[in-house]
Amino acid sequence: MVIVIQCKDKVGLVADIAGVMAKFNINILTMREFVDINEGAFFARLVVEPYNDIAVLQNALQKGLPSDAMVKVNPEPEKKIVVLVTKEYHCLSDILIRNHFKTLGASVEAVIGNYSYLSNICERFGVPFYEISHEEKDKVAFENEIKAQLAQYKFDYLVLAKFMRILSPEFVASYPNQIINIHHSFLPAFIGANPYKRAFHRGVKLIGATAHFVTNDLDEGPIIVQQTIPVNHNYSLSDMIRAGKEIETSVLAKALHFVFEDRVFVFNNKTIVFE
Amino acid sequence: MVIVIQCKDKVGLVADIAGVMAKFNINILTMREFVDINEGAFFARLVVEPYNDIAVLQNALQKGLPSDAMVKVNPEPEKKIVVLVTKEYHCLSDILIRNHFKTLGASVEAVIGNYSYLSNICERFGVPFYEISHEEKDKVAFENEIKAQLAQYKFDYLVLAKFMRILSPEFVASYPNQIINIHHSFLPAFIGANPYKRAFHRGVKLIGATAHFVTNDLDEGPIIVQQTIPVNHNYSLSDMIRAGKEIETSVLAKALHFVFEDRVFVFNNKTIVFE
Amino acid sequence: MVIVIQCKDKVGLVADIAGVMAKFNINILTMREFVDINEGAFFARLVVEPYNDIAVLQNALQKGLPSDAMVKVNPEPEKKIVVLVTKEYHCLSDILIRNHFKTLGASVEAVIGNYSYLSNICERFGVPFYEISHEEKDKVAFENEIKAQLAQYKFDYLVLAKFMRILSPEFVASYPNQIINIHHSFLPAFIGANPYKRAFHRGVKLIGATAHFVTNDLDEGPIIVQQTIPVNHNYSLSDMIRAGKEIETSVLAKALHFVFEDRVFVFNNKTIVFE
Amino acid sequence: MVIVIQCKDKVGLVADIAGVMAKFNINILTMREFVDINEGAFFARLVVEPYNDIAVLQNALQKGLPSDAMVKVNPEPEKKIVVLVTKEYHCLSDILIRNHFKTLGASVEAVIGNYSYLSNICERFGVPFYEISHEEKDKVAFENEIKAQLAQYKFDYLVLAKFMRILSPEFVASYPNQIINIHHSFLPAFIGANPYKRAFHRGVKLIGATAHFVTNDLDEGPIIVQQTIPVNHNYSLSDMIRAGKEIETSVLAKALHFVFEDRVFVFNNKTIVFE
Repeated sequence: MVIVIQCKDKVGLVADIAGVMAKFNINILTMREFVDINEGAFFARLVVEPYNDIAVLQNALQKGLPSDAMVKVNPEPEKKIVVLVTKEYHCLSDILIRNHFKTLGASVEAVIGNYSYLSNICERFGVPFYEISHEEKDKVAFENEIKAQLAQYKFDYLVLAKFMRILSPEFVASYPNQIINIHHSFLPAFIGANPYKRAFHRGVKLIGATAHFVTNDLDEGPIIVQQTIPVNHNYSLSDMIRAGKEIETSVLAKALHFVFEDRVFVFNNKTIVFE
Repeated sequence: MVIVIQCKDKVGLVADIAGVMAKFNINILTMREFVDINEGAFFARLVVEPYNDIAVLQNALQKGLPSDAMVKVNPEPEKKIVVLVTKEYHCLSDILIRNHFKTLGASVEAVIGNYSYLSNICERFGVPFYEISHEEKDKVAFENEIKAQLAQYKFDYLVLAKFMRILSPEFVASYPNQIINIHHSFLPAFIGANPYKRAFHRGVKLIGATAHFVTNDLDEGPIIVQQTIPVNHNYSLSDMIRAGKEIETSVLAKALHFVFEDRVFVFNNKTIVFE
Repeated sequence: MVIVIQCKDKVGLVADIAGVMAKFNINILTMREFVDINEGAFFARLVVEPYNDIAVLQNALQKGLPSDAMVKVNPEPEKKIVVLVTKEYHCLSDILIRNHFKTLGASVEAVIGNYSYLSNICERFGVPFYEISHEEKDKVAFENEIKAQLAQYKFDYLVLAKFMRILSPEFVASYPNQIINIHHSFLPAFIGANPYKRAFHRGVKLIGATAHFVTNDLDEGPIIVQQTIPVNHNYSLSDMIRAGKEIETSVLAKALHFVFEDRVFVFNNKTIVFE
Repeated sequence: MVIVIQCKDKVGLVADIAGVMAKFNINILTMREFVDINEGAFFARLVVEPYNDIAVLQNALQKGLPSDAMVKVNPEPEKKIVVLVTKEYHCLSDILIRNHFKTLGASVEAVIGNYSYLSNICERFGVPFYEISHEEKDKVAFENEIKAQLAQYKFDYLVLAKFMRILSPEFVASYPNQIINIHHSFLPAFIGANPYKRAFHRGVKLIGATAHFVTNDLDEGPIIVQQTIPVNHNYSLSDMIRAGKEIETSVLAKALHFVFEDRVFVFNNKTIVFE
């Protein structure tokens, strides 16, 4: 059973938390804890033996902690997600496969695409796909259609699995810390459009990918996972894009794994990840 | 100020430790903790605000913990080491440079070599070098000479920086969990002699290095750090050896950094490393 | 258009090959070439502008080369494969997805499993699945059934995508340099059964995967791709297995990509890979 | 013996080159070749058996190649370098150690620092150190002093081993493709000052280093080597800087190794590296 806590730091926090566990005779299996000293912020993730009365335990924990404390005892182990896509299949397919074999740590409630390209692969896995085109309408109208569709579902996270439209601040603000994007470069290198093309012309020797929460600043949200792979002069632009897809798939999968297991905390536009 | 604790696991350990800190009004800056559930073992490393009366604090901690508990409050931050070498310069030089610029986290008390090759580089840094040849004598006599020389020094660790003689169980037993070796392969691949030659003939696509504590089983002691780097068909045997030296230097440096900062615990022939 | 050549080395080989290209006025786009000096062996892979009369070009090349030369001009760019599996889905699914979206560089003709677990996923992609159980029969009978099924298909490679039965030397000999296996460890560490369990108990700090051609020596065939990822004391055995699946999928995909693009040469139980 | 060639591409180049080798009965040990198709540029590096009459061979090669061809037969295997430094010791020390043990592939003729901090380490290795302060003078005067000092030496490359002053376009233009810099970030992320501070505040999960030739655009010259290492929320700014020094040292060493072995070609602000 997982417990996550985020609050202002003060002397005795760990003792208080561990004291509650001891009082309830709950063994702590793993405890990961981090204090951001400069900012006076405290983060903890515990895996403890199961306990029946969640509400009582939650209450006992909350009482000992600062009033701003975010405490989650046994957060939903099976998250719900909706996936937004455009044309590229690699990230979505990886998610669908894991979803199908029940190793995603979440269930895919629906997929929304601004083209119909990925409808067929969703159908093969029995996952609802909705085409909402961005064409011949303004962004407000487009996003309102997405919102309307999203309103049909309960979900914990919105995963942008190569969704190539920029979302408005208003849209993003509706789902705070709930939107996860995979960006096709090692941020903050090559912020914005055409990162591979620019990487190719710059002659970089590594390419990377970044999974991050989406905030109003394009490509500037809290980073969850980043990885790079080596490239060299033999790589054409299309080789780079192909290699990039591999690392994008892998980085997004890793980030989702961490988020779905409640290992990720967001604070001051950065993340704490208890890997 | 660092505090490290290793003991049998039981409910309430973290609360006890954190409780002592709270009682002494000592803020915990970072706390890393690990429970080996299968083995019922507990490991913790705390960085806390400095506290004057070490003995009182140590006593208070010890009282609340199982009787087998190993507790170190503010272990010597500047370790002392003796380095054993043969002919290769790369690991020793890296250690001497860091020692010279005071970034090793330890002071090199002396270097012992079974050849004189590395005498000159030690001299340049004002570090005592002793040549103790293994030739024309049996292993017992050879090791006794080393032991006699070591007896002249106080040291926390004996670092085998490419020391190419196999030490006897008797010698190893004299310095339990104090001898750190850099092995020129990704253990347990290529245990024993000539790992690069065997790796070359096997056609591996990665080569690696392993830093580990030395126990009586050759190359079987607790692993501290391992890393690999890619190689390919263009690598001749000597290219592999050259690339190997780079990764050996880097892996040993990383392992020493962790050990000297009291981030490494040994248990059941494995290590816990709070990186 | 790709050309691959493998033969005994001699002075003037590159000139001969390039001379033929110049004579036919075919521009060389990329040429990768390797000489194993110790063994006197020559390997080349050229990408050249398309040329119509393959047979004439092949003949011209062959004439100038040692009589043992293996020359392939424009080898089938779309390979055919049959995949053997047991229960684990990750490698097979990755192959099926790429196959579905035509980015595998090969077409999956059929999948054979010794259990029925993976029948459903194949069905979803319209790929034939055959269950051939190994139970209640000896290895000869089991393998004969597989061979009989394979005889129904033309294929270039047999991919063992987590096929957990050891194939007999007779079976392997029937498909020389055609069987590709993904081994769940960084060979030659942990040859044989239960590599993750042994890695866990050894306390390694990296785990890896190896894609290799299958020969009669178990886990001793020519290595195509190897990769490792870091693990630490927080990893339980099941965490290691989970992380291992990720690296297995990735390593097999990379190896298949190289093989299907005719970038891999086998020689003396090693590979040359023009990555 | 090494031969490097760079010229416009045309049909038959490899045949011409290999034909010359065959005519002189010189066996090619390795040949690495690259054609930039879009730009119509050709690059080759051969390792061939030694041949006595370099001038005759060079002439024969040059005759068959386009008139713009750069051909170097047996370029000086032991390069000469001058190193520019400021205060940080790590890159310089690594270079001095390799220089001392004759594994650098170059000889360090002199070190110039804008502070005296690193004078002592140079002295220990018998390498001349010159302090040229940038204080109380303008950039022109400062650079003129450096140029005057450099004029005392013959050198192939100027290595900026953590030299923290920005060189003027005029200075850079005096040493085209001869100045190699180690930049403390994964370019083009964090171009300019204080990359670690900015990386820390951005919450990146990787830090990197880039070795590149220096051109007039700050941090925009042709990249030779880039590498990254993982960091996480446990890393303070000073931890990042410390980890960064390790990767800087390693990346610069690798780049120098490639350059000194004539494996690096510069073209269109990119490099071709025959690794």
